[in-house]
Amino acid sequence: MAPIHRIAQISSHLRTTSTRVSTLTLTRNFTSSSSSSSYKVTNKDRAFYPYALDIQSRWADNDQYGHLNNAHYYALFDTVINTFLIQETGLNPLEQSKESAIGVVAESGCQYFSSLSFPDMIEARLAVIKLGKSSVVYQVGIFKKLAKDGSASTGRAGASPASAGVFSKAASSVATGKTFDASEFEPSQVQGDAAATGHFCHVFVNNESRRPVPVPQRIRAGLEQLQVQVQP
Amino acid sequence: MAPIHRIAQISSHLRTTSTRVSTLTLTRNFTSSSSSSSYKVTNKDRAFYPYALDIQSRWADNDQYGHLNNAHYYALFDTVINTFLIQETGLNPLEQSKESAIGVVAESGCQYFSSLSFPDMIEARLAVIKLGKSSVVYQVGIFKKLAKDGSASTGRAGASPASAGVFSKAASSVATGKTFDASEFEPSQVQGDAAATGHFCHVFVNNESRRPVPVPQRIRAGLEQLQVQVQP
Amino acid sequence: MAPIHRIAQISSHLRTTSTRVSTLTLTRNFTSSSSSSSYKVTNKDRAFYPYALDIQSRWADNDQYGHLNNAHYYALFDTVINTFLIQETGLNPLEQSKESAIGVVAESGCQYFSSLSFPDMIEARLAVIKLGKSSVVYQVGIFKKLAKDGSASTGRAGASPASAGVFSKAASSVATGKTFDASEFEPSQVQGDAAATGHFCHVFVNNESRRPVPVPQRIRAGLEQLQVQVQP
Amino acid sequence: MAPIHRIAQISSHLRTTSTRVSTLTLTRNFTSSSSSSSYKVTNKDRAFYPYALDIQSRWADNDQYGHLNNAHYYALFDTVINTFLIQETGLNPLEQSKESAIGVVAESGCQYFSSLSFPDMIEARLAVIKLGKSSVVYQVGIFKKLAKDGSASTGRAGASPASAGVFSKAASSVATGKTFDASEFEPSQVQGDAAATGHFCHVFVNNESRRPVPVPQRIRAGLEQLQVQVQP
Repeated sequence: MAPIHRIAQISSHLRTTSTRVSTLTLTRNFTSSSSSSSYKVTNKDRAFYPYALDIQSRWADNDQYGHLNNAHYYALFDTVINTFLIQETGLNPLEQSKESAIGVVAESGCQYFSSLSFPDMIEARLAVIKLGKSSVVYQVGIFKKLAKDGSASTGRAGASPASAGVFSKAASSVATGKTFDASEFEPSQVQGDAAATGHFCHVFVNNESRRPVPVPQRIRAGLEQLQVQVQP
Repeated sequence: MAPIHRIAQISSHLRTTSTRVSTLTLTRNFTSSSSSSSYKVTNKDRAFYPYALDIQSRWADNDQYGHLNNAHYYALFDTVINTFLIQETGLNPLEQSKESAIGVVAESGCQYFSSLSFPDMIEARLAVIKLGKSSVVYQVGIFKKLAKDGSASTGRAGASPASAGVFSKAASSVATGKTFDASEFEPSQVQGDAAATGHFCHVFVNNESRRPVPVPQRIRAGLEQLQVQVQP
Repeated sequence: MAPIHRIAQISSHLRTTSTRVSTLTLTRNFTSSSSSSSYKVTNKDRAFYPYALDIQSRWADNDQYGHLNNAHYYALFDTVINTFLIQETGLNPLEQSKESAIGVVAESGCQYFSSLSFPDMIEARLAVIKLGKSSVVYQVGIFKKLAKDGSASTGRAGASPASAGVFSKAASSVATGKTFDASEFEPSQVQGDAAATGHFCHVFVNNESRRPVPVPQRIRAGLEQLQVQVQP
Repeated sequence: MAPIHRIAQISSHLRTTSTRVSTLTLTRNFTSSSSSSSYKVTNKDRAFYPYALDIQSRWADNDQYGHLNNAHYYALFDTVINTFLIQETGLNPLEQSKESAIGVVAESGCQYFSSLSFPDMIEARLAVIKLGKSSVVYQVGIFKKLAKDGSASTGRAGASPASAGVFSKAASSVATGKTFDASEFEPSQVQGDAAATGHFCHVFVNNESRRPVPVPQRIRAGLEQLQVQVQP
């Protein structure tokens, strides 16, 4: 069977297992333990996403209209996802054997809400919205990094970049199923101010045969930390 | 009203006018005039798309797995779309005034079927699947350039790049509503061998207010040349 | 006179005013106030450079050999230089009029000593080695970000990115001509462990005529903060 | 010995074997067989370079000043060099063993003379100006593709891209030492209209030890085809 046929199979496989998410607003319910109040958090809020990585924008990210080029958002997706996989699940892209299970991208998509511009510090946030036998669907939120007072960081004055990727306390306490204390929320985490949201699907395949294989156990354990329950 | 609010409006506007197309296989019906036969052509066939541009892949397009990085496909989308707009509709991105109607990207998406690798010559093909009052939804097909005998071009032996963007005769004869002669098809145009297909939505806005405005007449006339009727 | 001719003039202009620096090891003499000892610091040491910006590497930076692609180093140069100009001298690339003095790149070069690899946190450091009437020659050092104990940061464990661009205390105390206390040096600043060093020349020209003009006063004042005296 | 030390060795090695070429105008003497006239051709003329590859510019190549970003020129260098190595010398970057001799970049540089802008078709031209035991120094010229009448191609009207990389007849007849007939020159080849010229140094090293090794025989044979004699 030719490689092209195999990857077409992967894609069919994915279509039956993944949800179409690019144009949806996803929500999560947060119930506070200290009060009886309940919060809806959408994929446009920072609090939706358990993991974050700060990425310095670059001069060449801007296109001739003076804003981040749309294609570069996908490079940000790639970067937060693979930083997580390498730092938190032990993935080593440089030491793949023929028997390795490698993640190939089957589908991606992005919705753009507002623009970013060099030299903004960018905050890329990550959640897992579907974890199948062989595939994973990520949700990514792209935000402008906030200053510590919650205002939009404008260059030098504010940005305080995360040290490597970090887990968001409020968000991950939900992800791990613990009772959530609404007081953990910083107001800046629920402003609905994502510049863009996107999804990204990895299918794990055998490096040689390119047929789908189960998500490796160590990677699955890592991805489960990012899993969130969503309603369309 | 803050810019971020305005662009959120655009996005809502788009959501109601565009179709969700990223995961669909789109088909067009071709009816031959010389016989009574009818053909289904999908968005994985070259014949689906009225316009094509050859793009030389670059060393830096390959990622560390040795294949074109997924994010770079969107740079190919950008390139075929803007080459068309500049060469065929007179768009001049360098001479925008405050009153200009400029196209902002509201949404994009891509499905990956097989891999490409430097130094492949890439054939990026373009169609318009929805043309609204203020917005346009493109469909893009990314193919490996074929040698003249219809076989996959492998480097030096074959690639015969198009001179700037070109209109595909067979495809455009359909696009323009003329009766279609199936004999115009080259077999290579209906192999269903797209490496990737994607969609890309432009909303035209006033350069200063960022509110949606009608697609400028000259651009609309150009886009109509690429319009195809599709069934999901 | 055609634009191409004008820029050729710029280039001649630069050749007579700049030094050829790409293949040289540059040194600065540091004399300690507390002892009589003197230190040589080269452009391969962090202490050579008064200004630093941390830049998160990206998945797509790696080429198919698994290391940062050589061309992307120049994107790092661009980024540290323009971040400095925007944040410290008030340059606003988005609000250029026809009379503005804009900086065009006349020459660049890089020497590569060791490799970097995603997801390394990168430390890009900046000095000015020549400041002419219309032109400036920067020296850039590209380093792997160190953990706080001075060891090479390996992913999650260590990197502590700078908050926006920062001035290095030890280095700038020299740049500003103050007596230098050698005890300010952290050992990590004099390990000669640059992954790459490069130079980059801006010539300031009138935005319309493209003829050389004096470096604007506010930018000159900023650049003087980064100026270091070097010996080849 | 640590990898960083080894690559520092490579760099010293190169410094003693390579010439500093970034800021020089290089010339070649062409003597016509049919007349007694002699021509000087510089590295700003197309005729200087035996090999050429057409590369479609991309939307994202332009920076916010509307011209090709300086860093992307190095991606063009990479692309013409590696296309030559893969198509003409059999290099296969995807099948490297631990014993393979691989080319690592030790130094690069570029001088910019005039600007290019998307959607220009770019003509990247290649020569070898030094071929040592373990290292090679390339000279690259970046030109705007000309229309067939020798005028600068402006988008759709003119560009006629080369089919994969091609050898220039006039130039290679000199490279191979054959007597040169000046009538072979097209006027467009000696207009001195390079938008940029650059150099690029590869050192071949053992893939595992990273120590310099001789240039592999098959690659050397290919590179000799591009070798030109230059005077500073």
